[in-house]
Amino acid sequence: MLEEIAVNRCFGGWHRRYRHYSSTLRCTMVFAVYLPPQVESGTVPTLYWLSGLTCSDENFMQKAGAMRVAAELGIALVAPDTSPRGAGVPGDPAGAWDFGHGAGFYVNATQPPWVEHYRMHDYVVHELPELLEASLPVDTRRGIYGHSMGGHGALVCALRNPGRYRSLSALAPISHPLGSPWGQKAFSHYLGEDRAAWQAWDACALIARADERLPLLVDQGEADAFLAEQLQPELLRQACAAVGHPLRLRLHPGYDHSYYFIASFIDDHLRHHAAALFR
Amino acid sequence: MLEEIAVNRCFGGWHRRYRHYSSTLRCTMVFAVYLPPQVESGTVPTLYWLSGLTCSDENFMQKAGAMRVAAELGIALVAPDTSPRGAGVPGDPAGAWDFGHGAGFYVNATQPPWVEHYRMHDYVVHELPELLEASLPVDTRRGIYGHSMGGHGALVCALRNPGRYRSLSALAPISHPLGSPWGQKAFSHYLGEDRAAWQAWDACALIARADERLPLLVDQGEADAFLAEQLQPELLRQACAAVGHPLRLRLHPGYDHSYYFIASFIDDHLRHHAAALFR
Repeated sequence: MLEEIAVNRCFGGWHRRYRHYSSTLRCTMVFAVYLPPQVESGTVPTLYWLSGLTCSDENFMQKAGAMRVAAELGIALVAPDTSPRGAGVPGDPAGAWDFGHGAGFYVNATQPPWVEHYRMHDYVVHELPELLEASLPVDTRRGIYGHSMGGHGALVCALRNPGRYRSLSALAPISHPLGSPWGQKAFSHYLGEDRAAWQAWDACALIARADERLPLLVDQGEADAFLAEQLQPELLRQACAAVGHPLRLRLHPGYDHSYYFIASFIDDHLRHHAAALFR
Repeated sequence: MLEEIAVNRCFGGWHRRYRHYSSTLRCTMVFAVYLPPQVESGTVPTLYWLSGLTCSDENFMQKAGAMRVAAELGIALVAPDTSPRGAGVPGDPAGAWDFGHGAGFYVNATQPPWVEHYRMHDYVVHELPELLEASLPVDTRRGIYGHSMGGHGALVCALRNPGRYRSLSALAPISHPLGSPWGQKAFSHYLGEDRAAWQAWDACALIARADERLPLLVDQGEADAFLAEQLQPELLRQACAAVGHPLRLRLHPGYDHSYYFIASFIDDHLRHHAAALFR
């Protein structure tokens, strides 16, 4: 059951926010959808955006400027939240912003107390699409992309689920969470201290043994403060090169980690996805 | 003296935030500028955006999606704050959001205690352009536009200062503050109870006796919750019709007062201004 909590007309279509109870996450969640004007004459494909640390469903919809081209192409945009939320959901004990609330890392936790709610992979890959495809004028043509933690999430969700997505891209993704402080902190809590279990949630490790080779578009700002320590696009480049995974990695001098960077290149991502979604 | 407090590369240009002491407002102010890539080969014209109630310099730059076309056309965008700010600046005694901080209404106050700081008209029309034209690669080709309270501000700043702006437009402006509760509250404080003094700050009144007839583009959402009571575009239409002031008023079914509305039509405003700025 979807409860509509906001609607705004935008570029001839509709930005809508919904609240629902997630049986996967065992809490109430809010997400946002942009429905392009083409829904008036049929279903449209859907592009799932996974946001970075601290974001809710709102950052992307308000700041990325993606709706103009989505309306032109006829693609629905979906922006889930970045973690389970609410008083009953445990967060970082120290109140940090890089773990817990706003930092679900799109994994299925295996460790207490996180295992109870932190199952963002299953929420994003299964529950949310099934809900949307049953409730809204969207069909099963799906693409996925994201930023930073959400770039990692998009890569991992697609690489773990061959056949589920037609297209994949990322902006400034955490390419190798096993080698990044953000990833190490999150995975040690959500997945435990056995690093062998982490491999199943690492884009570089997954690319090495992928069955499906969706062409990857990745944009990265060279002035991004997180580039060297957290994001490590060169490792993604090496992982793709080692197995011949198609990658278009674009490095942009002067650009940082902000939505000003995302907005500058989001149109290219929409067109990258459209080429596969409408093939 | 401009102190740069942030810079982000965006669409090939630069979003920059500056702090400075305003001698007009007698307080420290922050504003944002978008410099398009064309500044690398010369000065560019400048488009001043006046925001609505509660906004700072950030709302427009983050949410309007204006930089893409500004970069294409070669226009600098400026977003001032919406009032003087700081501990020394009196705000609404009741803490309301429609008066005081974030609600300067782009007038020069005449009444104590507001007269000390609330001189947003002179700040926007004189101090800020003089500062920018002396410090940044922008020239004296100026346009002005805004939203809601800032739409009122843009209309009034241009109409009071013939020759200062080459172009003018507004989204969901308060067309007739003398007839709107927001305007009446603000003007009674800033300008006093003598309503004769308010005429000099009312777009409809100013259009009746304007010396200059800049063509007006005005967009308005028909689902805007403030339409009938606060914005009253029909009064603007009547004022323009009575004197033959050129007005293109577009009413958009379903659109509200939010930045989702602004983003949907901002490109048309940039092109409206460009036609005059580059003439």
